Amino acid sequence: MTQPARGSLLGIEQLEKRDIDGLLKLARRMNPDTTRPLLKGKRIALLFYEASTRTRTSFELAAKCLSATTTLIQTMGSSIEKGESLLDTGYTLRALGAHAIVIRHPCSGAPHVLARNLDIPVINAGDGMHEHPSQALLDAFTILRRKKKFTGLQIAVIGDIFHSRVARSNIHLLNKLGARMTLCGPPELVPDVATTLVPGLRLTRHIEEALRAADVIMLLRVQKERLAGLKIQLNDYVTRYQMTPARLKLAKRDAIVMHPGPIIRGLELDGDLADYPQSVITEEVHNGVPVRMAILARALGRAR
Amino acid sequence: MTQPARGSLLGIEQLEKRDIDGLLKLARRMNPDTTRPLLKGKRIALLFYEASTRTRTSFELAAKCLSATTTLIQTMGSSIEKGESLLDTGYTLRALGAHAIVIRHPCSGAPHVLARNLDIPVINAGDGMHEHPSQALLDAFTILRRKKKFTGLQIAVIGDIFHSRVARSNIHLLNKLGARMTLCGPPELVPDVATTLVPGLRLTRHIEEALRAADVIMLLRVQKERLAGLKIQLNDYVTRYQMTPARLKLAKRDAIVMHPGPIIRGLELDGDLADYPQSVITEEVHNGVPVRMAILARALGRAR
Amino acid sequence: MTQPARGSLLGIEQLEKRDIDGLLKLARRMNPDTTRPLLKGKRIALLFYEASTRTRTSFELAAKCLSATTTLIQTMGSSIEKGESLLDTGYTLRALGAHAIVIRHPCSGAPHVLARNLDIPVINAGDGMHEHPSQALLDAFTILRRKKKFTGLQIAVIGDIFHSRVARSNIHLLNKLGARMTLCGPPELVPDVATTLVPGLRLTRHIEEALRAADVIMLLRVQKERLAGLKIQLNDYVTRYQMTPARLKLAKRDAIVMHPGPIIRGLELDGDLADYPQSVITEEVHNGVPVRMAILARALGRAR
Repeated sequence: MTQPARGSLLGIEQLEKRDIDGLLKLARRMNPDTTRPLLKGKRIALLFYEASTRTRTSFELAAKCLSATTTLIQTMGSSIEKGESLLDTGYTLRALGAHAIVIRHPCSGAPHVLARNLDIPVINAGDGMHEHPSQALLDAFTILRRKKKFTGLQIAVIGDIFHSRVARSNIHLLNKLGARMTLCGPPELVPDVATTLVPGLRLTRHIEEALRAADVIMLLRVQKERLAGLKIQLNDYVTRYQMTPARLKLAKRDAIVMHPGPIIRGLELDGDLADYPQSVITEEVHNGVPVRMAILARALGRAR
Repeated sequence: MTQPARGSLLGIEQLEKRDIDGLLKLARRMNPDTTRPLLKGKRIALLFYEASTRTRTSFELAAKCLSATTTLIQTMGSSIEKGESLLDTGYTLRALGAHAIVIRHPCSGAPHVLARNLDIPVINAGDGMHEHPSQALLDAFTILRRKKKFTGLQIAVIGDIFHSRVARSNIHLLNKLGARMTLCGPPELVPDVATTLVPGLRLTRHIEEALRAADVIMLLRVQKERLAGLKIQLNDYVTRYQMTPARLKLAKRDAIVMHPGPIIRGLELDGDLADYPQSVITEEVHNGVPVRMAILARALGRAR
Repeated sequence: MTQPARGSLLGIEQLEKRDIDGLLKLARRMNPDTTRPLLKGKRIALLFYEASTRTRTSFELAAKCLSATTTLIQTMGSSIEKGESLLDTGYTLRALGAHAIVIRHPCSGAPHVLARNLDIPVINAGDGMHEHPSQALLDAFTILRRKKKFTGLQIAVIGDIFHSRVARSNIHLLNKLGARMTLCGPPELVPDVATTLVPGLRLTRHIEEALRAADVIMLLRVQKERLAGLKIQLNDYVTRYQMTPARLKLAKRDAIVMHPGPIIRGLELDGDLADYPQSVITEEVHNGVPVRMAILARALGRAR
């Protein structure tokens, strides 16, 4: 096989605008408060080689809302530990009757390897430093609910863009939808080359500049472990790039603050900021369920 | 928010007697052998920061008997490991659509922090050395089935009371229901101050004295790791406080032996004693399901 | 108690031929693509003291296809870690309402200890170096689908037979069904005494000899850790016993290649061989679901 099965979602980069619009439209029709029989009898394998709360739970609940059966396979306590290859694990899940596989893996491209070799849809729930398409879609869904349209929107993306699959997927998605983005962070976390990801990206080392006239402030996780080998100190990062109430005032009055989570209060953002009315952080989590329902319905349902 | 959502169960200490009576009465009406649609469409998050078999499985089965959906989040393999705060994990679960959270946490008061900040019921499945209310309720349920009433009952509580959340919850509960209790163990595990927990507690260092005329013998876990830093030796404990067939004869003829589990045969109790007809240890486990059904029904159902 | 509950499946050695025939016949009637209400209201505890993907997932899906409820208890995150004995964990699961226990354990005989002391069916999902009966049954099911009958079949069993519970169960099963087997491997992994397991076993140290006229080639896992203490080197094993396309030609033209998984490509078999048309490795996985449906139906259903 060479083509991923129809309904696969491997990344945003290869997705066409009308696919994205279709998914967002479908998500709006999904109601996570009721159970629909759309995927009754379908089995979805959740194959997680990395820790996850919100993405895993969100896909699990989305599947259950559509009456699908889920089975969770985690690194701990599975034959993954016995050295079985990713592909053979995929063949096994397929043979066990899985109709789709949702996979999170520390290696970029792992979902693609699976998708090229299986005849069932593969959904990327985050692969290494590459993509996290369902997160980008729920972020777009959240922005759309708040801002109604993307054209003309000014979006500040702040933090560890270099290591972030969320940033990569979001930048592709927001670019396709017509938003303008300014990337912001120290060179160690936002190298100059980051601006080549899509056309028209701006880059600044000063958070004040990034925030000016921003409609959307998209914060990214900064992991202490990742700073360890770099020249930048945690304290320096906090001083120069932490999102604070004072800095929030530099953005548009109705700007929204986003973060894919898990947040570390006192690191990427000031302690209370996540609870400000401008923060849509829990809204993003909430929107994860209908967006993933749409992704699963597109993968397996008649709704595609 | 400052008040926990209605239906929360954080501890026994703050519970009124009529609440306790109501829960025990409701539990008697629950049938774990059938499935009722009472909580159909409700989602219960099981958030376990500590290992658990019986409490977790018991809540899970109780939820399923009432047609609720459960999702398990454990320390291993979740964003808890990434340093997310308890409260933010709670916001996340709420945003994902959880209608109630059952939480076990090594820190005393953790469920209260969650409950004061969320508008959904929080159920304490054990917090540090503080409380374990569902265990106390199932113990009371078990006693009631065997002894019909609490007034006048003589209960010997033996073992590591100092570190035990089960002891703390049981002492509050049995006191509210009118039983008389004698605490028993070495000073390292039962400090003098333990008698101040509720009025009327007796304390003895001699197991023979505690057992005399006892209707109920409530044993508590003794963990080797906890003895390590103390002056008491494991052998000494076993010699002086282990429950044995010989010692059982000191209690009333129809006395029952209880233990919250997991038991270590040969430590808190003699190898065979758990299998004696006086032992109600597996009965306690069995009663855990209807009692937790009642707790969940009170939290989310129309039954409250 | 001394007799395991009716419906238990502890091993192949004690099973009678008509039981095996009955199970295989029942498995043929099972359809893993639909949901039947046969075990509605039944609760199956999956008690795994060892890592597992395919066996655990397979039993879980089989249970769900028959409308049973499953609950998974793994070593990590359970009271197993607190030192509770196997038997007391069994009593606990029974008291919690489990109608059957599926157990995997590193100690040979662990399921038997459980079965002799509980009045509910116990199903062995692999115990130490002893037996793995559901794997042997699904292998027999796979052979039967491909070869129609067992009488006269020539089967080559190649690899680490000494440490393999799969080999042990398969040798018993294939012997009862009338196949002829040749065991093959170095003395460290296939000691001479292995031929005494059932009557009529042949033994050879040369893979070429084992393959000659073989209808079925049954490969077994070789674990690097297990070779560590032995005189045999991994390279030597690969050179002398790895299954390759060239060696496959020595067998009958329509020979099938089997492996219980997880496979390590490049160790027990040449990289591509698992994808050859002769390979039935994923078919084995696929057949695991109906075979385990039959095992569960026999244990708990009216189908026995």
